[in-house]
Amino acid sequence: MQRTLIVHALAAEAPQRQITVCGWIRTRRDAKDFSFVEINDGSCLTNMQCIVDAGTAAHEGLGDASTGASVAVTGELVASPGKGQKWEVRARNVRVFGPADPASFPLQKKRHSDEFLRGIAHLRMRTNKYGAAFRIRSEAARAVHDYFHSQHFSWVHTPILTGSDCEGAGEMFRVTTLPAGEKDLSRDFFGRQANLTVSGQLEAEALALGLGRVYTFGPTFRAENSNTPRHAAEFWMIEPEMAFAELEDIMELGEGLTRHVVDHALTRCESDLKLFDSFVDKGLLDRLKGMLAQPFARVSYRDAIHILEDSGKDFTFPVAFGVDLQTEHERFLAEEHFRRPVIVYDYPREIKAFYMRGNDDGETVAAMDVLVPRIGELIGGSQREERLDKLLARIAEMGQKPEDYWWYLDLRRFGSVPHAGFGMGFERLLMMLTGITNIRDVIPFPRTPGSLEF
Amino acid sequence: MQRTLIVHALAAEAPQRQITVCGWIRTRRDAKDFSFVEINDGSCLTNMQCIVDAGTAAHEGLGDASTGASVAVTGELVASPGKGQKWEVRARNVRVFGPADPASFPLQKKRHSDEFLRGIAHLRMRTNKYGAAFRIRSEAARAVHDYFHSQHFSWVHTPILTGSDCEGAGEMFRVTTLPAGEKDLSRDFFGRQANLTVSGQLEAEALALGLGRVYTFGPTFRAENSNTPRHAAEFWMIEPEMAFAELEDIMELGEGLTRHVVDHALTRCESDLKLFDSFVDKGLLDRLKGMLAQPFARVSYRDAIHILEDSGKDFTFPVAFGVDLQTEHERFLAEEHFRRPVIVYDYPREIKAFYMRGNDDGETVAAMDVLVPRIGELIGGSQREERLDKLLARIAEMGQKPEDYWWYLDLRRFGSVPHAGFGMGFERLLMMLTGITNIRDVIPFPRTPGSLEF
Repeated sequence: MQRTLIVHALAAEAPQRQITVCGWIRTRRDAKDFSFVEINDGSCLTNMQCIVDAGTAAHEGLGDASTGASVAVTGELVASPGKGQKWEVRARNVRVFGPADPASFPLQKKRHSDEFLRGIAHLRMRTNKYGAAFRIRSEAARAVHDYFHSQHFSWVHTPILTGSDCEGAGEMFRVTTLPAGEKDLSRDFFGRQANLTVSGQLEAEALALGLGRVYTFGPTFRAENSNTPRHAAEFWMIEPEMAFAELEDIMELGEGLTRHVVDHALTRCESDLKLFDSFVDKGLLDRLKGMLAQPFARVSYRDAIHILEDSGKDFTFPVAFGVDLQTEHERFLAEEHFRRPVIVYDYPREIKAFYMRGNDDGETVAAMDVLVPRIGELIGGSQREERLDKLLARIAEMGQKPEDYWWYLDLRRFGSVPHAGFGMGFERLLMMLTGITNIRDVIPFPRTPGSLEF
Repeated sequence: MQRTLIVHALAAEAPQRQITVCGWIRTRRDAKDFSFVEINDGSCLTNMQCIVDAGTAAHEGLGDASTGASVAVTGELVASPGKGQKWEVRARNVRVFGPADPASFPLQKKRHSDEFLRGIAHLRMRTNKYGAAFRIRSEAARAVHDYFHSQHFSWVHTPILTGSDCEGAGEMFRVTTLPAGEKDLSRDFFGRQANLTVSGQLEAEALALGLGRVYTFGPTFRAENSNTPRHAAEFWMIEPEMAFAELEDIMELGEGLTRHVVDHALTRCESDLKLFDSFVDKGLLDRLKGMLAQPFARVSYRDAIHILEDSGKDFTFPVAFGVDLQTEHERFLAEEHFRRPVIVYDYPREIKAFYMRGNDDGETVAAMDVLVPRIGELIGGSQREERLDKLLARIAEMGQKPEDYWWYLDLRRFGSVPHAGFGMGFERLLMMLTGITNIRDVIPFPRTPGSLEF
């Protein structure tokens, strides 16, 4: 079908004798001599205003099409005398593809609650807010790829189906082809228990130790039974892994990535971000611009604990060396103390995963988190323990069996190198970019406990 | 760590007084006065040749490091007098990070079988062949994103966890948090049966009917118990979906995408592709260039059947109107008859999925497949049935319940539009690009029946 995307039509440099735009009617106002019809095709936030003169074939074609109906409008692209748009279409021909009965179409002009819209997730992308959110999602993903490509990283696809549990987290989904009730795993598809991955890190390490610089960007799963605005059972993670790299290198990488995505969004998603700045999170644009204004702060975990202890704040979770930072602590550091993103590094080894590289003090590991205002932890990473003996000792300490890590240990047996990486939750990044506070609203079809519709 | 990627060092425009390159030793030759050490860091196929003079600190640093050991070499980047490389490094300092005991390191200089290397998938990316394969994988993925971005598509993430079975294919993995043996699905994480997606199409349609043009690019699953070189339980699919589009539009899109990826690979992966042309599939480069030389052929299914019937070929599966084309037929059409990629369209409705748009002849649907030499079907797509009554009739015909498709039917109830899309198997594309004939060798850690290692 011949048509011009509205984003392109709106950017026209000159009037056009004939143009066809397609889209869904967002509003229709009927005057005596003509109808104003605003249509949106998802290519951008802005609608195309179409003027359909009464008594014409175009008006007949339009019929009683109302909000939600899909149409093709052919006509002349002319300068708009009205405020708010540069161009409008004077319709010569209107074709309605599909009506939307006002009595049953759930998306009327009024504002709907986020909760209501979650119940019609198959239609909510036709609203300004969710159209904008998912365009930003796509552009942010683009920016992630652009950044890593510019740094010579390869995008790698690590397996979703796994026999191992990377972080020992335990909260995994089991995958099977056995009928419900059947127990004999030896008869299962893989002849053993299979899970959905909670991280591609271990495999990414293997890839980094051949390709040098790699990143994953794919779905990840947690079978955590928590119904909070921050948890989803299925979400997307970005996990870069660099060979010949130390903690410092991934601090720079994490900061560089975050800044690039923010910069890209500010440049490419201007009008979509303005919508969120106006209606969802006032001050969003200033906050995002502020993130680019100066380098991220850096502070050791030890110093961060002192800052929190000296803050005089009454935290729900008390702080002391050795505790895991909670969101309230992370947000205090980023929002109130440093007033910008902050990288906290050298965490106590007791609260961190076995694969993190031990520091010489025997007490901490070469780990780092990037904390950002409103969100808390955006990135968590570490230099990896590349020394075979130390890694074996850690695995023994945890009471795990080295055989279960045979290939991971091989990476330390043969040509081991200092290497480091991190994980960034893509939805956290999107919540930071949009000001949306519920993870269910940055994912087209979110998966949470009890919720598998669509 | 300060280091220069070998791909950048090899592209230097002038000698450099001091440079550090890191990598894994691929070969080492010791002469009386010096050692030649070739190292590779995964940034490109080509090694950096390093000259380490005997009796120097550098030589002492190198020690007895052999194939597979990881090193940092600091020295001067100088023009190489030898054949085969423009630059080499005269080492001033060599640091060995990790040795690779020749007695146990499995990757020795000799050529290893693909099957052997599958057993050490965590190390095979350190070989020329698999390093090249996974760099091509990353560049091909980049090309996919570039193409869709240039056509104003949004990348969307459709859910992996699903309650529905899009194609009625049945071969799905079940996902659960219940202990093995437990039957009561109401106590499961989602309170009902959950599966791993076999296609994001239905959700992509919903997104296209808001955003206009979208594509998925993510993992997809089939629990098919077949051990063939063409089947994997987990693979990546690309599924674009366009609103306001007909069959013709996605034929163009599929051809445009394929050509763009081939062109990108020929330009950006020249030396990696040459390796496959030389050692894996002689004639590969000519075949790929040939794909760009002329437009893809187009033929209706009906005419394709006539061609096959008249071919005089003795096919294993006999052909007649109404049969599904087998790989032998597809390859005959692309390799022998048209001698280029060919798009077959208008398939019999009986052999196609319920969501494909019925043609006026009552016998065929607006479906199309892109067939390419060596591979057979690379792309399968269709215009979708956007007419509510026809779709309801199809669902009834299949004996399915309309309630199970309530939201999919809603897309036809409210602002329905002509739309179309297709699926492209990313691994098929990679097999086409590299000449690799086993799907297990284009996936870093492949998943097949009984095989879940790594």
